[in-house]
Parts: sequence; structure tokens; C-alpha cells
Amino acid sequence: MAKEFVVTPWEVKGDIDYDRLIKQFGVKPLDEVILKRLEKLAGKLHYFLKRKIFFAHMYFDSILDDVEKKKKFYLYTGRAPSGPVHLGHLIPWIFCKWLQENLDVPLLFQIPDEEKFFFKEGLTLEDTKKWAYENILDIVAVGFDPKKTKIFLDTEYAGHMYKYACLAAKKTTLSTAKALFGFTDSNNLGELFYTTMQSVPAFLPTVIEGKTTQCLIPCAIDQDVHFRLTRDIAPKIGYSKPATILCRFLPSLAEGGKMSTSIENTAIFTNDKPEQVKNKILRYAFSGGRDTVEDHRKKGGMPDVDVSYQYLTYYLEDDKKLKQIYEDYKSGKMLTGELKELTIEVINKFLKEHRKKKDKAKDHIEKFMLRD
Amino acid sequence: MAKEFVVTPWEVKGDIDYDRLIKQFGVKPLDEVILKRLEKLAGKLHYFLKRKIFFAHMYFDSILDDVEKKKKFYLYTGRAPSGPVHLGHLIPWIFCKWLQENLDVPLLFQIPDEEKFFFKEGLTLEDTKKWAYENILDIVAVGFDPKKTKIFLDTEYAGHMYKYACLAAKKTTLSTAKALFGFTDSNNLGELFYTTMQSVPAFLPTVIEGKTTQCLIPCAIDQDVHFRLTRDIAPKIGYSKPATILCRFLPSLAEGGKMSTSIENTAIFTNDKPEQVKNKILRYAFSGGRDTVEDHRKKGGMPDVDVSYQYLTYYLEDDKKLKQIYEDYKSGKMLTGELKELTIEVINKFLKEHRKKKDKAKDHIEKFMLRD
Repeated sequence: MAKEFVVTPWEVKGDIDYDRLIKQFGVKPLDEVILKRLEKLAGKLHYFLKRKIFFAHMYFDSILDDVEKKKKFYLYTGRAPSGPVHLGHLIPWIFCKWLQENLDVPLLFQIPDEEKFFFKEGLTLEDTKKWAYENILDIVAVGFDPKKTKIFLDTEYAGHMYKYACLAAKKTTLSTAKALFGFTDSNNLGELFYTTMQSVPAFLPTVIEGKTTQCLIPCAIDQDVHFRLTRDIAPKIGYSKPATILCRFLPSLAEGGKMSTSIENTAIFTNDKPEQVKNKILRYAFSGGRDTVEDHRKKGGMPDVDVSYQYLTYYLEDDKKLKQIYEDYKSGKMLTGELKELTIEVINKFLKEHRKKKDKAKDHIEKFMLRD
Repeated sequence: MAKEFVVTPWEVKGDIDYDRLIKQFGVKPLDEVILKRLEKLAGKLHYFLKRKIFFAHMYFDSILDDVEKKKKFYLYTGRAPSGPVHLGHLIPWIFCKWLQENLDVPLLFQIPDEEKFFFKEGLTLEDTKKWAYENILDIVAVGFDPKKTKIFLDTEYAGHMYKYACLAAKKTTLSTAKALFGFTDSNNLGELFYTTMQSVPAFLPTVIEGKTTQCLIPCAIDQDVHFRLTRDIAPKIGYSKPATILCRFLPSLAEGGKMSTSIENTAIFTNDKPEQVKNKILRYAFSGGRDTVEDHRKKGGMPDVDVSYQYLTYYLEDDKKLKQIYEDYKSGKMLTGELKELTIEVINKFLKEHRKKKDKAKDHIEKFMLRD
């Protein structure tokens, strides 16, 4: 029996069947043909692609057509700020940076500070703005090129955005919004309208690149529904349909679902100190190990359900080393404790570097910001 | 049997029973007590008040409390641009000007250029912007003080407005919006969201006046529903409930309903030439006269249903003269043709002056404009 799971922009839970999601959302798998084309153009493939962390797309082939014809495109991604950045948030950003570097492409980075305000009780616009600027430090720390990257908050850039949101809003009936997002009469008007603001960066090629260029949106697959709507609207108002390239969710420390800011001790934040990271992984990371050492040595571990191992697939670039760990764990040669220590080391090494860059980011934010 | 009528921000039709509207909308009649208070403070009463053209209000007494205590307030009115300005549009503006002059009060003038775009098929944002700037000439021609009057288009001032619209949107459920505006699943997301933008100027005291001041909105009663919602939201987000002072509709040339841009030959536009005004009134103005001169002389005319006479109540300031006309027409002494000639003269005199000021307005618009 297929397990139940839910994937919406506001809720991800259960044991996600990504193949079913591809069908359900009407997107396409990132197949070998398309990966080969990208490899030829970029000169290499990011390990997120080889490991199918990015696993689905819409119109990414059309972006590759443009690149082959030396026609420009631009990247658009985002971050809805309501708390600290965790390891899951960084995945699409790291991938954007790789695309920016290897395909020489500009990036529009949206911070929809009103989204979480609309959807969460008790959050003010002051709260989300505070988180926005904290999160921007993490974004800048990823290493984007300030000459080719623009970041904006919706409430600070609405003067430019609102008229495009109006164009999108006129083309979207309540009926369509209900069908796509499951809205009911108890949703507020902000929740209803918000999706039009998430469409807007797909209509802003002139901000960052030539007028007729298409955009590519690297993001986690929960955001796909917004861009399904954007693709429906775009040709009606004179724009290209945005392409998407979609990634899986970094699992939460506990089994199932995605890493989430709102559930304590399921996420590793970029601000977590090495000791905290260690404790969280040791205490909470769901283990694919056996109940006793004896049993583990005999039957072997289960890397495919082990959360520490999953984290290594996202954060350990070395393919050979990863393969070795997989085999050692599966054979029972490597114990859960050893796997966890290794993961702690990899994550803490990454975070140490990240925090260094984050500290320096403070002085560089203004180079990136777009405001009205 | 009570006649059926409809009054919404998007449709006014039928023979309007204003007493019933007062009950239906939960507003208060402008009674003698409140008018006496205003007269004492302003030194006089505008004839729109004496003739009950402005006939209802909410919290206008609280505005008068403020004036008595020498506490400031500000005016807010608006114009949704989708065509030329007609004589009906001018009524709240003329009244705003009178309030500005006699109570020394600043005015925020909203031009929601996205509203008609959302609600009318075939209108673009370029169309409504074009009309916005044409209509602003009419607004400036009314004679507002540029030092105390600020005009803005929603699409040009959204950078300031959007965050306040978000505050309003979070406090308004779809259920409330449906109940107030009658929305269905076929409405678009812009139509749903728009009311939050119409609330915003009630939350912008700092733009024009002190932080804690209340606003007074002079407008036609069809707009009341928006401000009913604003009054509900305001205290929840830390603002005073806006007060309203509400006027009747200038009748259309044909019997019943209000003067409307969208129905040809029912409206007199400020750009109509004297000959056009003459022809429209002679040909279309619904007459309260009798079928034959003989009958008219015997039974007398019916000024209360005569559209020309109604126009005189809006545009002929001289109380004595108006009373004389009423009596002469009612007694049969004055014929419909004579009444129409008189009305044509009064309207054309007004429009001649208005157009002179409108011609000069071109050079002064920028003194009034607020932009992001």
C-alpha cells in the first residue's frame, strides 16, 4: 500500500514518493539525455544532479536550447523568511551558485517577507523583515556574484512588483486558486493574493537580463504549484513560461518529512554551534542501524533510510568516499556511531566555512539589494 | 411595494431609496445636531449639506470632536479611472475642497488605477493610467491647495502601500469578503485583493498629517462597503476607524440610477462642449413635465422627478433662485423647455470655468503627485 504524504508550499509530511509527485504535479524527470546536454554546456555536472537530489523539471530543455544558441536566460529563486536558515534551505541556493558560475547567468533572489506573515499566526511584518535580513547573510555567504545577483524583499520592492502582480491576479480566478492551493473561505485575502507576487520575478527579465529572456527557477518541489500557475499566466500577459528545476527535500532529523524550521530538533541551522550539531545528530538523526552491534555486524545497516547517510549525499561531494561509506554501512562494517561521527564532521566543516563567509557578508549586503 | 435597487461599488441601478440604504449599510443620517456643530466650526454650511446631497455618515461626530479640541484630521477620497470625468464624480471633490478650505485640512487623493483593470474586461493598466492622468487634471481643476493635497496612483505608490494592504489582507477572510462584496469563484484574485488597497489611505496619516489623526472619507454611498471593512480592520492593526460622510448619486440623464461613464448619453462629461451639453439635456434629461403645455399649466410639473431640476440642486448654489424655480415649475408657470434652458446655462457656465482651470492644471500636476 502506498504511504500517504502531503506536499504543498505550506506543508510537507509523510514518506514522500518522488516518482508519484512527478506524475501528480505533471513535471518531467531529469533524464540522462538532458543531464548529458547540461554536462556538455557546463563542462561538468554538479553532484546534486548525479545523485538525483535535483530530479525533475519543466522546460529545462528549453533553457538548454537557449544556452546552445548563446541566448541569455536568468535564474530566479527565493526564501520566505520566518526563522533561521537550515541545511535544507541551502540546497537550491548552492545549486543556483553552481549554475551562475558554470553557465554565466544572473540571479534574481526574492524574499517574500509577506508570505509567512500571511500564513503564520503571531508573526508580524517586522518579524519577517528581521528574519529576511538575517537570512540574506546566509544567502550572500553562498558566494553569489554581486554583479550578477539581485536580492529584494517583497515589501521593499512592491513599487516595482505590484503592477505585475495585478497582471497575474486578473488572469487567475478564485476557482483556479482553490483548485491549485486548496483554499477555503477561512483563508485570508493575503494568502489568496500571495501567489501572484511569487509569479512576479518570472516577469522581471529586464531587471537582470534582456527583455525576452526566459527564467529558470531552481527550487524544492513543494513550490512547483506556484509556478504551474505562473506558466499558465505567462503567455496570457506576454511572457515566456518559466522553467523549473526541482529538488527533493533534505530529510528532517526524525524519520520522514522535510527539515523544517517550525519543528524543534528536526533541523540543523547554519547558526548551530559544532556541539549543537553533534548533539542533534547523535540524539535525533534517525538511524538505519540495527538494535545491537552484533545484529548490525551480521545483517548490515540500512543507509537508504539512515538520515545521517542522507545528509552525506547532500553535503559530501566526494563520490568515491560516499560510495565507500554506503558499502561499509550496508555491510555492517561501519556502525551507526561511526557514520554519525563522520556526518558531524562533514556538516561542521561545511558550517565553519559557511559561517566565516556569513560573518563577512554583513559588509556586502548592499551590493546585492534591489529596493524601490 | 418598495422598488428594487442595487448599490455596490460596481453597480448602481434602480430607484434608490436612500433611507433604506442608511439602514441596510448601518450608517447614520446627517442630522440637524451634527450639521449645527459643523456650521459652528466651519462658519457656514455648504449647500450640499443643506440640500441633503451629503446625507449620511459614520463617525463624523468623532471628527467634529477632534476639530473642537483643535486636534488634526485628514481627508481621503478617490477616483477609479476608466474614462472621462462626469458631473457626478465632481460632487465629493467639490465637497472635499470646501472642507479643506473651511476646516484647514489636508487631503489624500487615491487613484486606484488597478481597480477598473481588475473589474472590466478589455481595459489594460496602460488604459487606466492614461485615464488617471486625464482625470487628475479634473481633480486639480477643483482647486485644491497643492501644499495640503497629495494625489497618487496605486501602481505608482504601491511601494508605500503594499505593506499596509498586507496588514489589511491578513485580517480579512475570504468568507468576510464574500459576504460584503458578493464574490464568487469566478472573481479574479485582483478583485478579491483590491479592497485592501482601498483601505490603505486610511492607514497613511503620516503621509499627510500627524501620526494619530483620524481620516474622514467624503464619497458616494456605493463606496461605503469598502470602508465598513476598513473600520473592522483598523483597530486590529492599530489605527483609528475612518469616518465617512456619504453623498447621493447625481442621477443619470435617463430616469433612475446614477450618472455613469459606461452608459452612453446618460452622463455629462467635463469635456463635453456647450452644444453637446445642450443636446444631451434637451434630448435625454428625463422630464417631470406634463404631456401637453395645457396640461402642464393646469396640473404643474413634477420637479422631484425632473432630472434637470435635480442637476440644479447639485450645481445651482443660489438657494432663493432654486426655490423660485421649484415653485414655478411645480405650479406650471415654468415649462420643461424653460427649465432645461436654465439648467443648460448653469451647467455650461460651471463647465466653462472648470475647463479654464483644467487647462491650467497641466502645469501644476507635479506639485500634487506622490510616487514611490
